[in-house]
Amino acid sequence: MSTWTSVAEARKESAIGPDVEIRGWVRTRRDSKGGFSFIEVNDGSCFGSLQIVAPGELSNYESEIKRLGAGCSIVAIGRLAASPAKGQATEMQADEIRVLGWADGETYPLQKKRHSFEKLREWAHLRPRTNTFGAVMRVRDSISRSTHDFFHDEGFFYLNTPIITASDCEGAGEMFRVTTLDLDRLAASGKPVNHELDFFDRPAYLTVSGQLNAETYATALGRVYTFGPTFRAENSNTSRHLAEFWMVEPEAAFFDLSDNMALAERYLKRLLRDCLDRCDEDMQFFNQRIQPGILDRLTAVAEAPFRHMTYTDAIEVLEKADAKFEYPVSWGVDLQAEHERYLTEQYVDGPVILTDYPSTIKPFYMRLSDDEKTVAAMDVLVPGVGEIIGGSQREERLDVLTRRMDQAGLNQDDYWWYIDLRRYGTVPHAGFGLGLERVVQYVSGMANIRDVIPFPRTPGNAEF
Amino acid sequence: MSTWTSVAEARKESAIGPDVEIRGWVRTRRDSKGGFSFIEVNDGSCFGSLQIVAPGELSNYESEIKRLGAGCSIVAIGRLAASPAKGQATEMQADEIRVLGWADGETYPLQKKRHSFEKLREWAHLRPRTNTFGAVMRVRDSISRSTHDFFHDEGFFYLNTPIITASDCEGAGEMFRVTTLDLDRLAASGKPVNHELDFFDRPAYLTVSGQLNAETYATALGRVYTFGPTFRAENSNTSRHLAEFWMVEPEAAFFDLSDNMALAERYLKRLLRDCLDRCDEDMQFFNQRIQPGILDRLTAVAEAPFRHMTYTDAIEVLEKADAKFEYPVSWGVDLQAEHERYLTEQYVDGPVILTDYPSTIKPFYMRLSDDEKTVAAMDVLVPGVGEIIGGSQREERLDVLTRRMDQAGLNQDDYWWYIDLRRYGTVPHAGFGLGLERVVQYVSGMANIRDVIPFPRTPGNAEF
Repeated sequence: MSTWTSVAEARKESAIGPDVEIRGWVRTRRDSKGGFSFIEVNDGSCFGSLQIVAPGELSNYESEIKRLGAGCSIVAIGRLAASPAKGQATEMQADEIRVLGWADGETYPLQKKRHSFEKLREWAHLRPRTNTFGAVMRVRDSISRSTHDFFHDEGFFYLNTPIITASDCEGAGEMFRVTTLDLDRLAASGKPVNHELDFFDRPAYLTVSGQLNAETYATALGRVYTFGPTFRAENSNTSRHLAEFWMVEPEAAFFDLSDNMALAERYLKRLLRDCLDRCDEDMQFFNQRIQPGILDRLTAVAEAPFRHMTYTDAIEVLEKADAKFEYPVSWGVDLQAEHERYLTEQYVDGPVILTDYPSTIKPFYMRLSDDEKTVAAMDVLVPGVGEIIGGSQREERLDVLTRRMDQAGLNQDDYWWYIDLRRYGTVPHAGFGLGLERVVQYVSGMANIRDVIPFPRTPGNAEF
Repeated sequence: MSTWTSVAEARKESAIGPDVEIRGWVRTRRDSKGGFSFIEVNDGSCFGSLQIVAPGELSNYESEIKRLGAGCSIVAIGRLAASPAKGQATEMQADEIRVLGWADGETYPLQKKRHSFEKLREWAHLRPRTNTFGAVMRVRDSISRSTHDFFHDEGFFYLNTPIITASDCEGAGEMFRVTTLDLDRLAASGKPVNHELDFFDRPAYLTVSGQLNAETYATALGRVYTFGPTFRAENSNTSRHLAEFWMVEPEAAFFDLSDNMALAERYLKRLLRDCLDRCDEDMQFFNQRIQPGILDRLTAVAEAPFRHMTYTDAIEVLEKADAKFEYPVSWGVDLQAEHERYLTEQYVDGPVILTDYPSTIKPFYMRLSDDEKTVAAMDVLVPGVGEIIGGSQREERLDVLTRRMDQAGLNQDDYWWYIDLRRYGTVPHAGFGLGLERVVQYVSGMANIRDVIPFPRTPGNAEF
């Protein structure tokens, strides 16, 4: 539908022919002794660039083409031909090259020399023009796309749960407050806050999960999933935490824990297979430059059944492990990153689904098992990243739910609508949450979570 | 992959056979004189219900089945057969019916009698169980799904722009503040706010648009689109405004205004066609109960080319119009809802794309035309809803952009990264924003925007 051709298309033999027009940005220019130049042009549509041969006969060859450098934008029109060079199917013999925008080689930050990822974070507006971040963002797109495709294929409806919420019940300390009160005037007043003057007539926060809302729709539409931003106001300056990140949360009526585990496994495998199929060049790049061997590992994971293990069995393994842990292990403790890494990297050497955690370390909404000690929880752990999915079958029994809420010190009035779901036509149901950025890290091998989201939000960081 | 069958599947003749299991919620029960009952069961997978014939011989017929009412959840197993009744292809002869959850007919809010949409907003957790809201949410899902499919088909990558932003430049008065400062302590202090103690070391807000960020990615990946929540802290208690709503914002390098208009038209037509194809029963319902004639109107819109009109021509039409407007019209004024309605409902009787607005009433980033009086803006207006899309070609010329910023009184330092895009390899580019809820209204005919989003956020309203 465009009058021009994308670089992704132009790199295929099917595009060979005259009068092809491409538009993009120069990566490199190399002048040949024969009086012509090779220009590598990329337009973001794929990892690779198209090689353009610019003959010296072009009217602007001396005045413009020999000044082209990294970052300049051009339109090139010419004959697309099979390329004699290795590693590319086609190249363009240019009849015309028009310069749209210059990039001063003295000041343009993305010169040929490699910059550290830390440095590139300061140029978050330019870093998607680099090989690494272009690849990361295409893979991120592929994972998002597969998410929608997968859940629709499985009969789920996409649901938007609220971002602003007045429920501060679940971990208020880590929530961002949302307000229209004038903080400067408020501070100067010296008087108590009148929350009724705030936009929502009461304190409001940014959501930490859409799950409870999603349950209301699962018990109406059957199967739903959310895919939206979530927030944690945790003051963690680590390579694993973001204040703003994207979560996928499916919730399905009539699912029990084993349906839920099977869903999570099918979902993860679909994401991996689609990335391997669709982002071949990007994945090759990660394999060569970011995490050698990642292609083989992901391919293996996409094919083999996931290992299942109860929390109780995992504790036993960890107690017997020939490893020194900073945090001691015994039944009832919450697993730390070091334990998860041991299980998934040393013991299983692949993904593992841990189930049946002690009720004391899990939230009130997880279904209490018959042993009255564990709940129908599941966490999916993967090598290198740790927990990638957390989920559970939900407590559908009214009496058990309200008892668990009382034990947790929660006020039932705050949850009247959530409790209603158990009062009217309650059904077994289950769901999970997947952190998108964790998955992008897992697939790309990128070490820092700030490098897999376009504009990371962390303590002290809201630039761009 | 489930061991049971969805109602959507079970209503097709292809599912006919023995030992079919369905799981869902009772809509109605009708007892026959012959000593058996008809039970309508819905599971949200589609608009229609499956009729289940429960013979009196079932062991729990008297004790349970004759007590079933709206909202109860059941599992039914039996032979699926062709139905002799009109309007349904199949019905189930039940061998077994298990009750999962009761819904007390005395207290369950969704009894047979119809409730007003206002009343149902108080039961936002239960309203998706009704015909209307089930249909609205399936159509909303269809539009979201088509959005991802359409943009991927057109070579766009999905992009997540930040929700929390420190740029308060564009209309700070209407933005929500995001903070981790303790408001109560702040108010009691009587001292000036120390913003460095806040989470991001400076004031932060909820985004009103991802456009400026999307431009950075369009000039790297070529074509991107966002689809995420956006916020307005406007104190508008109308049927057209939400404080939290979802926006789709494509942004494409090398697109000019006409590429942009063509993209918007293809996109809207795709959304309509997919809804008409995929949500047939839901659309039939809207046509019968919500807005008679909507099916024909949408079908016509999906087929005919959109009308284009410059702002200047539109003003001329309005000036000559045989209609009384509350707000007088002359070249240079911003169009009001009444003017938009006249143009799209009276004059064109269909969608219209208005272009080339006066630069004085449009933001600095829209591309200044050669006449120096207008900008390359476009708004898509549709009958009944008004503006559904707003977009423009962006100003790609460094000198013009900075001049326009100065005129608008904006501080260039706040936009250093946005200006960089014009400094390094600038290219013509364009994009637009589409309000998801407005489209759902347009497609469903629902009058109030609060009824097309699962949990509406409006002044004084953040329940659920």
